[in-house]
Amino acid sequence: MTDHFARHRRMLDDAVTALHARAFWTPFPEVPSGRIYGDTARADGEAAFRALVGRDFALPGHPERRRLGAEVSPWGDSLRIAYPAADAPVLIAAAQAAAEALAAAGVETRVGACLEILARLNRISFLLGHATMHTTGQAFAMAFQAGGPHAQDRGLEAVAVAWTEMTRFADTARWEKPQGKAAPLVIDKHWTLVPAGLSLAIGCNTFPTWNSYPGIFASLATGNPVIVKPHPAAILPLALTVQVAREVLAESGLPADAVLLAVDEPDAPITKQLATDPAVRLIDYTGSSAFGGWLRENARQAQIFTEEAGVNGVIIAATDDFDGMCANLAFSLSLYSGQMCTAPQNLYVPAAGIDTEQGHKSFDQVADGLAQAIDALLADPKQAAGICGAIANPATLDRAANARDQGRVIRDGTPLLLAVDADAPVAQAECFGPVAFLIPCADADDGIARAARLAATKGAITAALYDTDEARIRRAAQAFARVGVNLSVNLTGAIYVNQSAAFSDFHVTGANPAGNACLTDTAFVATRFRRVMWRRPATV
Amino acid sequence: MTDHFARHRRMLDDAVTALHARAFWTPFPEVPSGRIYGDTARADGEAAFRALVGRDFALPGHPERRRLGAEVSPWGDSLRIAYPAADAPVLIAAAQAAAEALAAAGVETRVGACLEILARLNRISFLLGHATMHTTGQAFAMAFQAGGPHAQDRGLEAVAVAWTEMTRFADTARWEKPQGKAAPLVIDKHWTLVPAGLSLAIGCNTFPTWNSYPGIFASLATGNPVIVKPHPAAILPLALTVQVAREVLAESGLPADAVLLAVDEPDAPITKQLATDPAVRLIDYTGSSAFGGWLRENARQAQIFTEEAGVNGVIIAATDDFDGMCANLAFSLSLYSGQMCTAPQNLYVPAAGIDTEQGHKSFDQVADGLAQAIDALLADPKQAAGICGAIANPATLDRAANARDQGRVIRDGTPLLLAVDADAPVAQAECFGPVAFLIPCADADDGIARAARLAATKGAITAALYDTDEARIRRAAQAFARVGVNLSVNLTGAIYVNQSAAFSDFHVTGANPAGNACLTDTAFVATRFRRVMWRRPATV
Repeated sequence: MTDHFARHRRMLDDAVTALHARAFWTPFPEVPSGRIYGDTARADGEAAFRALVGRDFALPGHPERRRLGAEVSPWGDSLRIAYPAADAPVLIAAAQAAAEALAAAGVETRVGACLEILARLNRISFLLGHATMHTTGQAFAMAFQAGGPHAQDRGLEAVAVAWTEMTRFADTARWEKPQGKAAPLVIDKHWTLVPAGLSLAIGCNTFPTWNSYPGIFASLATGNPVIVKPHPAAILPLALTVQVAREVLAESGLPADAVLLAVDEPDAPITKQLATDPAVRLIDYTGSSAFGGWLRENARQAQIFTEEAGVNGVIIAATDDFDGMCANLAFSLSLYSGQMCTAPQNLYVPAAGIDTEQGHKSFDQVADGLAQAIDALLADPKQAAGICGAIANPATLDRAANARDQGRVIRDGTPLLLAVDADAPVAQAECFGPVAFLIPCADADDGIARAARLAATKGAITAALYDTDEARIRRAAQAFARVGVNLSVNLTGAIYVNQSAAFSDFHVTGANPAGNACLTDTAFVATRFRRVMWRRPATV
Repeated sequence: MTDHFARHRRMLDDAVTALHARAFWTPFPEVPSGRIYGDTARADGEAAFRALVGRDFALPGHPERRRLGAEVSPWGDSLRIAYPAADAPVLIAAAQAAAEALAAAGVETRVGACLEILARLNRISFLLGHATMHTTGQAFAMAFQAGGPHAQDRGLEAVAVAWTEMTRFADTARWEKPQGKAAPLVIDKHWTLVPAGLSLAIGCNTFPTWNSYPGIFASLATGNPVIVKPHPAAILPLALTVQVAREVLAESGLPADAVLLAVDEPDAPITKQLATDPAVRLIDYTGSSAFGGWLRENARQAQIFTEEAGVNGVIIAATDDFDGMCANLAFSLSLYSGQMCTAPQNLYVPAAGIDTEQGHKSFDQVADGLAQAIDALLADPKQAAGICGAIANPATLDRAANARDQGRVIRDGTPLLLAVDADAPVAQAECFGPVAFLIPCADADDGIARAARLAATKGAITAALYDTDEARIRRAAQAFARVGVNLSVNLTGAIYVNQSAAFSDFHVTGANPAGNACLTDTAFVATRFRRVMWRRPATV
């Protein structure tokens, strides 16, 4: 049996150091380059993907009553991959059967297995890139990064936080209480880590691996068998993950069924049945607030970690780099056609316009500047496809079409830019997809207040501010801190408000309705297991 | 303004070291000695207590509409202390008004204030001892320890865990992402700690300070104003705590209203109104499972940390110190008349008896041994009062009286020892107070299984095992770990299963119905605040 823990110990230690320092660090290169991943990695990845299309997906030993799967690539083709599917009670029973051995395995064995799974996932990043591209609609470069190395970073981060938490306190101690002149009382104590129970990871359509890895790896590292429930339209990236995980678990002497795949059909979903099973004690969920609310109301036996909807705001108060600002926002609005939980939606611009290094710009001039920057960015169709990707879900197109009538069109197409009043109903909730609203506000502080208020009531994950007034920047930082929104100020280069880097940016704060969990803080792992002691007088 | 943080820094560092090592440590001596607390401390404490009786309790600046308070000492006298009382909305508003300044204060200011509060509470431990004695019915020695130093230990532990968690990650970072041959991307990041909201501490009748300090101090240290809601029969120990806290807060430049007292009357309780207020985001509760369930059902806006009911089991399998075992259990059953969440209730003894160093003992001989040990322990009335204390709540006496008919009386009085069948309904739930059940089981493993099963369904905080079989001791440790119960093995000296020492024993595991929180693990503090970032390109 390979000692995966020893092999990856250095990486683990570096990850722990990084997450405390929160500077840039990653062991998983984000550049899809043959020089990094091997000369044939690109071709191999594509070939491996092609070899999966139209076939039965192999998960040896996995519970199976029938085959399911009806994924259609947002880029056109039907994937025709058939996954093993089992009924919810069968999956629950299989996970329960794996629980004891997983719990009994030492922390190092479980953490070592998690690290090896991540390392192997990294080696198939090109395959994961294609799998992500053809289930989410992301362009390949983004699918490679978000579906591969960036997701692996987030998984590793969760393992590192779980490791620090599991090893935080002594697991044995001799307690010696002085008794004046008498002999001290001496007690030997031993602590066992006890996992919470079964864990359910409910994936989303747009970021199947990135959003699911933290919960999957946090639960697995802390000893909870994980049932991975992919969105029916984005199964493959998680099926590959489950496949690799089961291989490594088996090689580590752990039960392969500690990671299971729960495939269902849109018209016969099993998520609710899984989520309300008494054995399921942990649920990680990314998706709509409506289903998040359903889980809270009905899966009362479980701890629920969520990322839900939100309305991300941008306040354009002033800038000394008007073109840089417009170019930066153009990219943020266009990237993956706004199908990101971190994408800006409501852009607040003072009705009287803003000061820039190019002189005063009216509201309409700011609107024009943004529209032109988007046009320029997307002028080349190939580049446009590489940035915007494809729309993952037909509902997103309908949503954009419906929004179109509710404002003045500043820029048509993808992304759609509409001018609307500050109180327009369409701008008071998340309009997921390639739609953004330009909103006149009384002044910048009014825009900050409006964006913050929406964050408090409807949730928000990101906010951005363009400003030259340091005092107002501080006020904005305070206002968004109060409502739990991470704020980016004056981004004009190749960093975008949508981006959240593992080991540095905590993703979602847990402090507003956009989610109750944070990737990856201590709270995300701390209740996935408990400590139980036995003690007895020392035999000295 | 005194630098409380600097003054107590050494104690904080030692506390952090202790809680990681989990060996014996305390800065607050448990011995009620004039040599430690000052020659006149004993007399001063009693005089201070007498001076409070029959008067208005002073909480300068505290919201007040009227005066309330109808405490009656379980030892006889009515306290006739009148506390300032305000309506729930007024308390909520006052706490909210204190929130911003408390949140804005630095971590060191808040933690320094908490440490100073604890240090001052320690200095009035004799007063707290009398206050605890005359509200809980504990005998003075126990009231001094549990109401004073041991409670202060638990408060300090919570502050230390909160401190480590708040300072765990960098609060600023320069993130520098390499860009090949181009200049790196450089972003400066800043994190703010954002408190969860208002905190409500719901105290209990029997351990008003010990059980409430962890929640109060964890919330205060992390920046959440705390409304302290004492049990109407045990106000004084928490009123003294609030008094000291408000003094120190004011001296620290923090709003005194960051700690408030919510006094009510048994027939006009305000707990539910406070608990369901949308501003209340944290609730610490010790008490019945029924009200715990009510909170979970109704205070959905809040995180709820509970200690509830449970059935603590003892399995008497074998011993090589029969008299030591009986004496140890006699004390555990008698101490404070069993009014402890950690007191044993169900004692499982193999129907065929056990092996001891005195030869085989039948079930009845074991029962006799226990009864005789209790009789011997309590033979001297003064010593008996010093151990058993008084009954805090008349309902406890009724409960014991009702139980008496449901089994064969092994020993009458306090504590009452009854022999009942393993499936007797009376032994399937908590019977809080001076009642224990001797239960014949098929064999020791059967007893372990029964106690563990009850723990899983009804909760348990402690378990004890007397055994000479190492393999069975391991099995028991595993069985109780699985159901989240801390197990004590072969206690025969001056350490008792009821005792839980701060910095070493985690109290309650959070892994069975006896409570969802653990004093004091990381999870107890980690969600009381969130981290929010703002970032911008570095100006190098």
